[in-house]
Amino acid sequence: MTKTGVAAVIGLGSMGRGAALSLLRAGIKTHAFDIRPDALADFAANGGVAHDSAAGAVKGAEVVFLFVVNADQVEDVVFGTGGAVAVAGPGTVFVISVTQGPASTIAQARRLADAGMLCLDAPVSGGSAKALAGEISVMASGPAAAFDRAAPHLAAIAGRVFPLSDAPGAASKMKLINQLLAGVHIAATAEAMVLAAASGLDLHQVLKVIGDCAGASWMFGNRGPHIADGDYTPHSAIDIFVKDLGIVSDAARDLGASVPMASGARDLFCEAASQGLGREDDAALAKILATRAGILLPGMIQG
Amino acid sequence: MTKTGVAAVIGLGSMGRGAALSLLRAGIKTHAFDIRPDALADFAANGGVAHDSAAGAVKGAEVVFLFVVNADQVEDVVFGTGGAVAVAGPGTVFVISVTQGPASTIAQARRLADAGMLCLDAPVSGGSAKALAGEISVMASGPAAAFDRAAPHLAAIAGRVFPLSDAPGAASKMKLINQLLAGVHIAATAEAMVLAAASGLDLHQVLKVIGDCAGASWMFGNRGPHIADGDYTPHSAIDIFVKDLGIVSDAARDLGASVPMASGARDLFCEAASQGLGREDDAALAKILATRAGILLPGMIQG
Repeated sequence: MTKTGVAAVIGLGSMGRGAALSLLRAGIKTHAFDIRPDALADFAANGGVAHDSAAGAVKGAEVVFLFVVNADQVEDVVFGTGGAVAVAGPGTVFVISVTQGPASTIAQARRLADAGMLCLDAPVSGGSAKALAGEISVMASGPAAAFDRAAPHLAAIAGRVFPLSDAPGAASKMKLINQLLAGVHIAATAEAMVLAAASGLDLHQVLKVIGDCAGASWMFGNRGPHIADGDYTPHSAIDIFVKDLGIVSDAARDLGASVPMASGARDLFCEAASQGLGREDDAALAKILATRAGILLPGMIQG
Repeated sequence: MTKTGVAAVIGLGSMGRGAALSLLRAGIKTHAFDIRPDALADFAANGGVAHDSAAGAVKGAEVVFLFVVNADQVEDVVFGTGGAVAVAGPGTVFVISVTQGPASTIAQARRLADAGMLCLDAPVSGGSAKALAGEISVMASGPAAAFDRAAPHLAAIAGRVFPLSDAPGAASKMKLINQLLAGVHIAATAEAMVLAAASGLDLHQVLKVIGDCAGASWMFGNRGPHIADGDYTPHSAIDIFVKDLGIVSDAARDLGASVPMASGARDLFCEAASQGLGREDDAALAKILATRAGILLPGMIQG
């Protein structure tokens, strides 16, 4: 047995792939499963051990990262037929890095504990580039034993780990706050870039100036260049924020809170998805607003 | 005559005061006018020369900074009875650091040129702390002669100067883009902090974590602490963004552009103003949303 326990990663999307490659780079033996054969082939080509089922990847692992998209997928890969929990050894740490409602995370953590597993509620933030560099930020809550056992693995994938509580749920709540802001800021970035273009401003100059002013945001700095360059290669797709702002909206409803800004952003993401842009980069919200304004942004063609 | 020409500052609000004190600190003789006697007394106590009219402050100045609130005030202090342009020497540089519609700036610049003056369209950004430190960012457009003559003065007040064009108007357009983003981000910050409080998260922990994640923005970092600390001392008041988002809205209408996020934020600022919060710090938007959610934030008392 190696000094650092074997890892498994379920879900090799932009965040999961970055985490998996970061684990490999740290010298940790890493197994993975994804439903997409090309994602598995890429992982294997980078030195990982690819499997055609979640159970296959998890068997023998000490720490299992879940980078799937939503609560239904967690249900499927962990608790479903051929799922992970049936083959995992006692005390295996399940690191749930999924953006989902806190109630889902809490319920999953309870079922995992009942099955003799350890669990960390551990959503991540920072984008695909940081994920690939092993510099992602991790919001985490769960028992000390889970933190201890997964410490080398978290160190491999994360620039910062924020331990928030010993109870699962706190990190998922924090992630929703982050997604509320991130979703609104993407929509604001799109709206600002379209108004700038309509005003006749140079979009690269806008990026440079605003990045130094009080209008700056992480999302403006990250997504703004996609719009200025007309490059909508999906780093994070429109559909992700349709989902995430839906979770924010549901959480707000359950708490009796009012989220008009998140609702406004959600409307735009839903409109973009309904117009066939769901798999494009989320900066493609700008196309919706450009069309409304009757202008063409870089990369747009007369429709 | 000193090597660097005498300066005048009209309007000693949070940005004007910071600029005026930065000019003094750079060894530039500086005159000022404000309608508020206490602002003038503070300026005089810091080594400046206080005047009871704009004309008094401007007479003999080579560079005149306008830090008033809106286009009407520019009209008043520059072109009105006892206004600046009547006493200014030929070639005086008027630096218009006012957030107003580009059409207003362009019209003022034309009238100033007709009167033999130089003019820079030069809105600023960065907040009161940077203004006081002489580290504000300046977006500027205007003729090279105006840039040249005002260069030492701009260096005294600014951390960065972005020369955008030789025509007034470009900088005002850029400032509107900044204000669109800034206003939306303040509203998003308020909404996120209220949802976080309703979720039971520790607000100072939220500031720390989100500041390191993709939900970060300049405004979240600047205004978020006001909410977590319950301190609504006005650094920038609700009323400012009622005005600025109104200008954004008018500009968007004129350009045929759609700004749903800015409109949503504007609704919140207007609601806050109508509830008597207009003179409070703009972070007080959070109080509106907290009341809707039926929770109390730090510093709020049972109403």
